Amino acid sequence: MPDKIDPPHATGAAEQTVQKHSSPHDLVFHAPFVQRVWIALEEKGIPYEYKEVNPYKKEPHFLKINPKGLVPALEHDNKALYESLVLLEYLDDAFPDSAIRPRNPHELGLVRLACQQISNVVVPAFYRYVQAQEADKQKEGHEAFVKALREVHEQWFVVGSEWARGDKFGWVDCVLGPWVARFTLLEKHRGFKPEDVGPEFKAWCDKLLDRPSVKATSSLPENYENVYRRYFENTAESEVAKATRKGEWLK
Amino acid sequence: MPDKIDPPHATGAAEQTVQKHSSPHDLVFHAPFVQRVWIALEEKGIPYEYKEVNPYKKEPHFLKINPKGLVPALEHDNKALYESLVLLEYLDDAFPDSAIRPRNPHELGLVRLACQQISNVVVPAFYRYVQAQEADKQKEGHEAFVKALREVHEQWFVVGSEWARGDKFGWVDCVLGPWVARFTLLEKHRGFKPEDVGPEFKAWCDKLLDRPSVKATSSLPENYENVYRRYFENTAESEVAKATRKGEWLK
Repeated sequence: MPDKIDPPHATGAAEQTVQKHSSPHDLVFHAPFVQRVWIALEEKGIPYEYKEVNPYKKEPHFLKINPKGLVPALEHDNKALYESLVLLEYLDDAFPDSAIRPRNPHELGLVRLACQQISNVVVPAFYRYVQAQEADKQKEGHEAFVKALREVHEQWFVVGSEWARGDKFGWVDCVLGPWVARFTLLEKHRGFKPEDVGPEFKAWCDKLLDRPSVKATSSLPENYENVYRRYFENTAESEVAKATRKGEWLK
Repeated sequence: MPDKIDPPHATGAAEQTVQKHSSPHDLVFHAPFVQRVWIALEEKGIPYEYKEVNPYKKEPHFLKINPKGLVPALEHDNKALYESLVLLEYLDDAFPDSAIRPRNPHELGLVRLACQQISNVVVPAFYRYVQAQEADKQKEGHEAFVKALREVHEQWFVVGSEWARGDKFGWVDCVLGPWVARFTLLEKHRGFKPEDVGPEFKAWCDKLLDRPSVKATSSLPENYENVYRRYFENTAESEVAKATRKGEWLK
C-alpha cells in the first residue's frame, strides 16, 4: 500500500475496467493499486468483482477472510488468499485455461526464479532509486536499478524460453509490468529511460505498455504522480518507504 | 552456505544416504547442508545422484549450469534450477507421483503462504536469535523466534487443511524441518525449547524428527555444532551472518 494519503482510486482506463466488474461475483479481487494480479485476471479473461479496500478503515468481513489485511487479496467462494506471487499461481491452478505460466517444469522453474528476482532485487532497487535525494545517491540508485533490470532481462534471453523471453505473455510480464507502467514517473523525476537498460528491453517495455490487459488496468498519470510524490521527496511513511530509508531490504 | 570453515560433509545417517546416491544419474542434487530439497527427494522416493559442491572452489561445470553458484541446486538432464522453494515446486511438477503439495488450489495457496512466511520471517528470526550476544538481546531473540513459529503454527491449524496442519507430510514439513533438526543446538546454546511455542508444536516436532526422510538426511549433532559455532559466537562471515548483524533482513 503506497502511503497514508487519500485512498487512491482507479482512474482513466482502469476506472472503466472497474465499472465493468462492479457486480457481485463469487471471485472478488480486493484492490486498489495492485496491478500484477489485475493484469493476470484481464489476461486470462476470468469473470470477477473488483472491490477497493480502504487501507485505513478495513471492513470486518475483509479482516475475517484475510487476517493480515493486505491487498492484493482474492476471495473465491468465501476463501481468501493474498501475496501477488501466490495469487498468480492460484489463478493458473484454479483456472487452467489461458495459462500464463509454462507447462514445462523446467521453464516454469526459470519463470519462478525470474519473478523472485524481480520481487527481491528489482523492486527494492526501484524504491531506493526513487527515495534517493542527493545527486550521488540518485546516480548510485540509477546504476543499481539498471543493473537489476539488465540481470533479469539477460536471464530471460539466456534461457531461450518463449515465456521467459516475453514472446508469450505470462508471469514475468504480470510481475514486472506494473513497474514499467511507472517508468514515465522515473523519467520525469530521475531521468531514467528504459533505453538505459538496452534496446531489446526498451522494445519489450513498448510492447508491454501496448498490451490491452496492461492498458485496461492503468490509471491516469496524475494518479500515479499523486501516489508517488512523497516517495520521490522521501517523506512517505508506508512500511516499504520506512524499510527503504533504514536500508532494511535484503540486497 | 553456513560459513567459511572446512567445507562441511554429511555425517551419520546422512552419510549413509549419500553413499546410496553416489552413482551417476540424470538427476543431480547439489549440496551440502541443504536439507529441504533433500527431505523432499527422499520423501518422494525419486532416484538421484548426490554431489557436494566445494563452496570455495566451484567447478566450471557447476558454474556453467548455475551461474549464481548456489546450493541447493538440481541438475536434471543437464538443465539446472536453484532456490529451495523453486526446487520443491519443480519436484512435484516434474515427478507428480507421491505429491508433497496439495492438489486443491486454495490449500496449495495456503501452503505457499506458510512457506513464504517461514523463509521471510522464521528463518531471519532464527539467525537474529542465534547471533544475539547480550542477555537482553537473547531474550528479545527468544521472544521473536517463539512468536514467529507460533504464527506459522496457528496459521496451519486455522486453515483446517491436513497438508497445512502437518497431518499429511508435505512442503511445510520440508521447509521448516531442517530448522527443527537444529533445535537441540538452540536448546544447548540459548535455552530454547519447542514447548515454548506450545504443546501441539512440540508434538509436531517430535513426529517430524522421527520421519525416515528427516532422519536419513540428518548429520551427527557435532557436525551441526561445528557449522553453527561461529553463528552462536557471532563471528561468522557468511552473507546471512553479515546481513543479520547489519539488521538488513526484512522484518
